[in-house]
Amino acid sequence: MTTGGTRTGLTTRADVEAARARIGRTVRRTPVLRVEPAALGGAPGAAPVALKLEMLQHTGSFKARGALNALLTAGDLPAAGVVAASGGNHGLAVAWAAARLGAPATVFVPETAPGAKVAGLRALGADVRLVGTRYAEALAAARERVLQTGALAVHAYDEPAVVAGQGTVGLELAEDAPDVDTVLVAVGGGGLAGGVAAALRGTARVVGVEPVGCPTWHRARAAGVPVDVEVGGVAADSLGATRLGALGFAALTEAGAGSVLVDPDAVLAARHLLWQRLRLAVEPGAAVAAAALLSGAYRPQPAERVAVVLCGANSDPVDLA
Amino acid sequence: MTTGGTRTGLTTRADVEAARARIGRTVRRTPVLRVEPAALGGAPGAAPVALKLEMLQHTGSFKARGALNALLTAGDLPAAGVVAASGGNHGLAVAWAAARLGAPATVFVPETAPGAKVAGLRALGADVRLVGTRYAEALAAARERVLQTGALAVHAYDEPAVVAGQGTVGLELAEDAPDVDTVLVAVGGGGLAGGVAAALRGTARVVGVEPVGCPTWHRARAAGVPVDVEVGGVAADSLGATRLGALGFAALTEAGAGSVLVDPDAVLAARHLLWQRLRLAVEPGAAVAAAALLSGAYRPQPAERVAVVLCGANSDPVDLA
Repeated sequence: MTTGGTRTGLTTRADVEAARARIGRTVRRTPVLRVEPAALGGAPGAAPVALKLEMLQHTGSFKARGALNALLTAGDLPAAGVVAASGGNHGLAVAWAAARLGAPATVFVPETAPGAKVAGLRALGADVRLVGTRYAEALAAARERVLQTGALAVHAYDEPAVVAGQGTVGLELAEDAPDVDTVLVAVGGGGLAGGVAAALRGTARVVGVEPVGCPTWHRARAAGVPVDVEVGGVAADSLGATRLGALGFAALTEAGAGSVLVDPDAVLAARHLLWQRLRLAVEPGAAVAAAALLSGAYRPQPAERVAVVLCGANSDPVDLA
Repeated sequence: MTTGGTRTGLTTRADVEAARARIGRTVRRTPVLRVEPAALGGAPGAAPVALKLEMLQHTGSFKARGALNALLTAGDLPAAGVVAASGGNHGLAVAWAAARLGAPATVFVPETAPGAKVAGLRALGADVRLVGTRYAEALAAARERVLQTGALAVHAYDEPAVVAGQGTVGLELAEDAPDVDTVLVAVGGGGLAGGVAAALRGTARVVGVEPVGCPTWHRARAAGVPVDVEVGGVAADSLGATRLGALGFAALTEAGAGSVLVDPDAVLAARHLLWQRLRLAVEPGAAVAAAALLSGAYRPQPAERVAVVLCGANSDPVDLA
C-alpha cells in the first residue's frame, strides 16, 4: 500500500483515496450544511454556501483523520506505542488513534497546559507528561522518548500519511457538494489545506485562509518556498506553525491554491456569528475560513459556489452567547 | 391547497408534503450525522445512530418550519401582521417567519423574560411587548391584540399548518436516513412529534420522549385522551405545554408511537455528552431524545437503526465545557 508519497513528494488524489480506504470506516463522515448566502455575508442572490462540519469529527477536529492514517500506515506499532508533543488538537488525535488501535500513547505537554486539555488527553487513555514551561521543552522530551524507547512519533502535519488522511475531508466534500467551485480552508502547518488541495485538484479551487498573525502559506506562496514566520495572536493555538510544511506547500502550489488573510477581529466576529446565526460552536482557528467570507476578504463571483471547512471546536464555548 | 386537515382531524403525509412544497426552499435542510453507537451509549456491535441536526435550523429550532407554513397557509396576512405570546422558540420562529414575508410581528412576553431573548426577538424585527410577570398575562394581552386589530395568531403547536410544517423534519430524515427503524423525538405540545409521526407512518416507528416532569404524551397515551398535566423541572421552558395538542395526540396515536420518560439528571448528562463527544451544542429540551438512548430508558434491539432528532439549541452554552 502507498503511504502517501515521500516527505518531499507530492500528495496525490490516489494517496488520499488510499487513506480513505484505511480510515473511512472508523472516522465520522461529517455532514455538509448548506446555508443561505446571507448567513455568511453574501448578497441575497448569491449561491448557497456549503459548510463542511468537520468539527464534529472524533476528538473535535480533523486531526483524528491524519493521526489514524499515520498509525495504520506504520503497520505494526512498537511496544512503546506512539508519542506526540502537543497540548492541542494533534495530541488529542494521536491519543484517540492509539486508543482505537490498542496502542499506548505518551503525550508531552508543557506544565502550563490548561487542566482541561490534560484531562481530555487522560480521558482518551494517554500517558500525559508535564515537562517544562514551553512547547519546545515538551517537544525535546518527546524526541528523547522516541530515541530511548523506539516509540513512533507522529508529526502534526508534515508527514505523507498525515496530509493524505486530512485530505479525506476533501473527498467527502466533493461527493456531498459536487457543484462547489471554491473551498475555503484554514492553513496552519498545511496538512489539512494541502490534503484537501490534493483531493480536489482539477475539481474545485482551494483558497488557504490565515489570520494576519499566522501567515505561513501567504509568506511561502510569495517567497516560492516555506519560510519561518513569527506567529501569534488569534488562533495561534491551532494555526501557529512557524513554517508551512513542505508537503502542504507542494500540494497547495501544485493545485494553484489561493491565499487570503483575515484580521483577528474578523475571526472573532465570525466565531460569534456562526453561533448566533447557525448554532455552530467552533474554535477560533475554525472560524478563520468563515471569516474570509464574512469580512469580505474573499468575495465570490455572483454565481460562484463556495464551501467552507469548519475544522475544529476545541475551545470553551463560554463566550459564545 | 390543503392546510393540513382540520384542528380535530388527522395530519397526513400528504399534508406534510404540501407543507414542504411551501417552505422547502426557505427553511434549511438540516443535515444528518451518523455516529458510532458508543457515542450514544450503544454496545460496540450496535448499528450507527443517525442524528438529525435540526438545531441548526433558522432561529435555532424546528419551530421555524411550522411558523412559516402557518403564515404561508393563511394567505394574505392582515395589515396588523401576526401575533405570538412566547419568549421562547415559538416567538422567535413567528418573528422570523413574519420578517421573511415582510409582515409585522408583535410578540408578547412577560416582563421577567431574559434580556437575551427579548434582544433576539428585536433583532428579528419583532415589536416586543413586555406585559405582566407571568406567561398567562402575556397570552391574555396577545389575545386582546388579536381581537382589537385582526392580527393573525399562530398557535405554538395545535394548529394543522404548524404540525404539518414540523413534520417536514420527518420527510428529510426519511430521505437522508432511509434505513432507520425508529425515531426518537422529544414531545412538548406534540407539534414536532405528531408531524414526524405523520410523515413517517408506515416507514419508521416514532417514540416520543419526555422528561418525567413534562409527561403530556405519556399521560395522554395512558388516558386515551390529552389530559392536563402539572409540568416543571428540566426542559419545561421548551417542553412544558400543560396538555398535549389534539392534533399531536391524533397523529402519534394513529402511528402507534411509543412513549419513554427520562430523568432530569439523564437530560443534563445527555446535553453534556453531546458536547463532549460530538461538539453539538443543544438546549435541554433537545437533549431529551438523546437521553433516552444514553440513559438506557430506550434500549434498541441489536440490529435496530435509531435516529434522534436534536430539535433546538437556544440555551446559553456557558455551562457546556
